[in-house]
Formats: sequence, C-alpha cells, structure tokens
Amino acid sequence: MDGGALAGRVVAGDRRALAQAITLVESTRPADRGPALDLVEAAAAAGRKGLRVGLTGTPGVGKSSFIETLGLMLTGRGSRVAVLAVDPSSPVSGGSILGDKTRMPGLARDPLAFIRPSPSGMVPGGVARRSREVVALCEAAGFDVVLIETVGVGQGEGLVAELSDILVLLMAPAGGDELQGVKRGIMERADLILVNKADGVLQPVAERTRADYAAALGLLRRRAEDAAGFPAVACVSAATGAGVGEAWAQVEALAMWRRDNGFLDSRRARQARLWFETGVREGLVAAALARPGLRAAIERLGAEVAAGQTSPDRASLQILQAMTGV
Amino acid sequence: MDGGALAGRVVAGDRRALAQAITLVESTRPADRGPALDLVEAAAAAGRKGLRVGLTGTPGVGKSSFIETLGLMLTGRGSRVAVLAVDPSSPVSGGSILGDKTRMPGLARDPLAFIRPSPSGMVPGGVARRSREVVALCEAAGFDVVLIETVGVGQGEGLVAELSDILVLLMAPAGGDELQGVKRGIMERADLILVNKADGVLQPVAERTRADYAAALGLLRRRAEDAAGFPAVACVSAATGAGVGEAWAQVEALAMWRRDNGFLDSRRARQARLWFETGVREGLVAAALARPGLRAAIERLGAEVAAGQTSPDRASLQILQAMTGV
Repeated sequence: MDGGALAGRVVAGDRRALAQAITLVESTRPADRGPALDLVEAAAAAGRKGLRVGLTGTPGVGKSSFIETLGLMLTGRGSRVAVLAVDPSSPVSGGSILGDKTRMPGLARDPLAFIRPSPSGMVPGGVARRSREVVALCEAAGFDVVLIETVGVGQGEGLVAELSDILVLLMAPAGGDELQGVKRGIMERADLILVNKADGVLQPVAERTRADYAAALGLLRRRAEDAAGFPAVACVSAATGAGVGEAWAQVEALAMWRRDNGFLDSRRARQARLWFETGVREGLVAAALARPGLRAAIERLGAEVAAGQTSPDRASLQILQAMTGV
Repeated sequence: MDGGALAGRVVAGDRRALAQAITLVESTRPADRGPALDLVEAAAAAGRKGLRVGLTGTPGVGKSSFIETLGLMLTGRGSRVAVLAVDPSSPVSGGSILGDKTRMPGLARDPLAFIRPSPSGMVPGGVARRSREVVALCEAAGFDVVLIETVGVGQGEGLVAELSDILVLLMAPAGGDELQGVKRGIMERADLILVNKADGVLQPVAERTRADYAAALGLLRRRAEDAAGFPAVACVSAATGAGVGEAWAQVEALAMWRRDNGFLDSRRARQARLWFETGVREGLVAAALARPGLRAAIERLGAEVAAGQTSPDRASLQILQAMTGV
C-alpha cells in the first residue's frame, strides 16, 4: 500500500481512508511498517493539531456515558471529535470491552465523531507506540479533539498520560473511608479529577468526594506545567449533563495556558523523545534477546535469583558474558 | 583481594573488614568486580537476615535527628544498627551532605552502630546496585536493623523502596494548604508516614497534618502486602523522642505480619529479580551503545525527534537498522 497516497485521502477528510490508515498502522506484519511510517509522516506534514485529552478511571465510574455526553456536547458546537480506546493490559479482551460502539450510541451515529476501539493481538509496547501514531492520524484528519480512553487498570493509565496533552481522571462518589481503587500513582498525574454521578441521592456524596480529593491534591507538589488552580477537582453528571460544560471549560483553559506558556509543545517534545528512546532501548534488547537460547537462560537465571540461589549481579554478569564472549 | 577471606572476617564481626568490604563493592574498577561478587556471595552464605528499613523525606524534615533518636533507642535495647545513605541523584555532593557523621554524633560513637555515607563518583544505576550489596554485607555482619536513608529528591526514593522491606516517609508538620513538596508517587509507596517535630507549638499542626495524610491514604487502593491499618500515619518528635518507640513498634508489627504471610520473602525475591533483569537490560543496552558513533547518533536523532523534524518510530528504526545492518 502507498502510505503517501493514503495520507492525502486522510487529510482530505475521507473517513474510510482514515480507518484503512489506522489498520495499516496497527498491523503487526513487518512489511507494513515501512508504508505505515511513510503514511504517518506524510499525514503529519499537514501540520494540523488537535487537543489530545486522556481519560482514565476504574471500571464502573461511567466513562462511556461521560464520553457520550461530552462528545455530543462538543459535536453540537461543531467540533470534530475522535474517541480512541487504549488497553495495553488485556489485548485480547480489549476489543470487546472497549470497542463496542453501543456504549456511545449517539456519538457512534454522529457524522462529526469517529470512534475506534483498542487494537487487539498486540504486545503492550506495541499498543503504546501504535496508539501514538493513531492519535496523530486523527489530528491530520482534522479532528479538533482526540479523546484517548483507557480502563483504569494495568499499564493503561501511565500510557495515556504519555499520549495526551491533558489527563482527566474520572472518579465515582464514595465515602471518605471507602476504598476507591484509584491506582497508586495515577492521581499524581491527573490534571483534572472529575467526580461523576453527581446527581440525585449521590449528589452530596459526590460533593464530599470532591472535597476529599481536593484536600489530597493540596498535599502534593505543584508541577511547572500546572496553571494556578490545577490539578483541579469538580463534580459532573454524565446522566444529566450537569457540570460537563464547566469541566470542559477547565480543560480548555488549562490547554490554553499550557499553549501560551510553551508547555504543550515541550510536553509533546518530551513525549516524542521518550517514545524514541524507549523504541531504541526495546529494539536493542529485542535484537539481543533474539539470540538462540538467551531468553530461556534469562528465565532460568531469573528464577534462580528469585529463589536466592544466585545473586542478581552474578546472574546478569553471566548473561552479559555469554552475549559478548562469543 | 580475596573476597572469600574478607567475607569470613565480615561475618566474624570485624568492623574494619566490613568497611573494606564495602569499599571493594563500591569500587568502579572492573578488576574489583569479580572479587566483590565472591565476597557478597560468601557473606550471603552466612544466611543472616536483618530488617531493611528505607527512610525518605524532603530536606529539612529532620531525618538525621530522627535516625539519631531511633538508632540510640534501638542500640539501647541491644540491637545492632547500620545506617546507609543512598543518594543517586547527586553522586558528587552526596558524600558531603549525607556522609557527615556529625549529623548523628551519638550514633557515630556507638559501638553497636555503623554509619556509612553515600558512595560518590558513581552513575545512578551503579549506586543502586552497589547499595543493594552493601545492605547484604551489613546483614551478614550481624546488624539486626539496616536503615537505608535517602534525601527525598530525585531518584533516591524509588530506589530505597526497592532496597527495603519497609518504607518510612518522614514529613514536616504543615497546614492543609501549604505545599509539602512530597514527590508525586512516593506517598503511594510508603508503609508508614511519620510527621516529625510533633512537639511544642508545632504539636497541633503536626496532628492536623497527620489527619490530612491519613485521609489522603484512605483514598488509595490497598496492596496485598498491606496489613490491616497500613499504610499508617503517626506523629513523632525526634527532639523529645515522643512517639518514636510507638512508630518502631508499628514497623516491627508490619514486618512480622509480612514475614508471617510470606510477603517479606516474596518482596525480596521480586526485588532480586528486578535488579537482575535491570542489570541485564542495562548491560545489553550499554554493550550496544559501546559501538562507535551510536551514542552521538542517538543524541542527534533525539534532538530531531524533540524538534518534530522526524518521527520517533522512524528515528528508532534508523538506529536499529544501523545496529543490525552492518
């Protein structure tokens, strides 16, 4: 397939071409990699930029309903919205859990929206790198907002943070002593925490939850890329739409502040460099591990190390000597 | 130097031999690595185990005073205590900041205590791996408690977490809206948070700080290795000694629970495996990077990627093709 020609059709707004382009990028066939790179670069040459918003949260907090409500609000204002699901932790089930367009029935029928499920059958590292290219393709296709969604378990959250300009964490209302299942570490990376289901009888609980998280965030060190008042916490209701407009206004305000202060560019540059360096390291290790027997030796020595039969340093020295000594 | 003979003297309790052994382990001379490995393995064969307690906290929270108070309390009960400083982020200044034994004048003169400053002149990865061996040497020398201290900045915290059985975070009293400078992520790894300076006029502030952190911890997901009530938060005063005995009782209770439930062993096994695999990966990458010109090419391409002149995947592919194509 000619990546360059396909890129032209993507940039011209051909949705079928975009779907084809994403399939090419997600292909695990080695022969597809060259054309895919050509495609991504030709598409990037269009120079279009959208706002990349990561969205995470544990199962059951209402991510689908929230995206449906937010997405329809945005398309109602004339914005073009792409929704991408990323699920590196369970590549097999990923497609079925996240890919179901019936989760967002209104958005699925909306001509201004584009929904793409998580690719299946890939190693986690692969999902990560390809997702980055898919985001870029959606931008090139003229989407103003790219929502990158992940289930809030496994490695998805850290990954979405490295794919997005702004990271939103969706929470459920819960009493102060209930465990929320927030993954350790993710609260620290969020720019905006939204407590969903702030309606009906849960309204006061949601408000208390908001206050709890606001207090917890106040204990953390401020990052350079935090505008005043961020990270922020707010209540929303995907069901009634309450607070969703205000939440989006906060996302836009933070994005604008970051753009004006150079943090959007520096964040993307940092991310690009990180993906590059990770790619090199992973490639070098993969090339080394391709030597016959090495993977098995590492597995065997790893078990011996864990069992205390040999020291970690002795074992790694053994591996490295076997590598370089022949 | 004969590593095995030196190990015998270390295990026999010869302090001069322990100091020599640590110097050998910390040596960056390639010729010293073999004897150092022999030494560490011979020492480990003694099968002695101490309790490895990591201690972190931002500068100024009173880590030195706390260690002095805690250490003297433990030696007063007849325990043998080793204090190791780890500072991978500033290998040059590390020695002077952390190594000064005048920070703990009582403990420095105590025959039951052993204080070792952070090694200098090493790369961060080196500090990490050698520190693990130094901890093991101290255990072999019969120390019941090994306190591993790091300044709460840079990479030290994550590292100390991977060296210890129990991780203690020392905090200063602060109002709820003051920024504490807690590094994002470290609060999530702590087993016990101690609010120091809970004496005099700061007592009520410390108590409020304790409540704030207890509430924040309540929002996090419980780990399998958390006994009921952990991670815990308590107030201490290194100056008056108040709460220090109780805090240590909590450390011991958690350690006992983890031991009884197999988590001490599984944690150490996981750490050993991690150090091994990290060593292999770092070694493989280092061996690959030793090729002439490669490091410079990565630097150059990394800058191009950050500037958006080439894509991360194109750039990493270029590097890998150059590696394997010749």
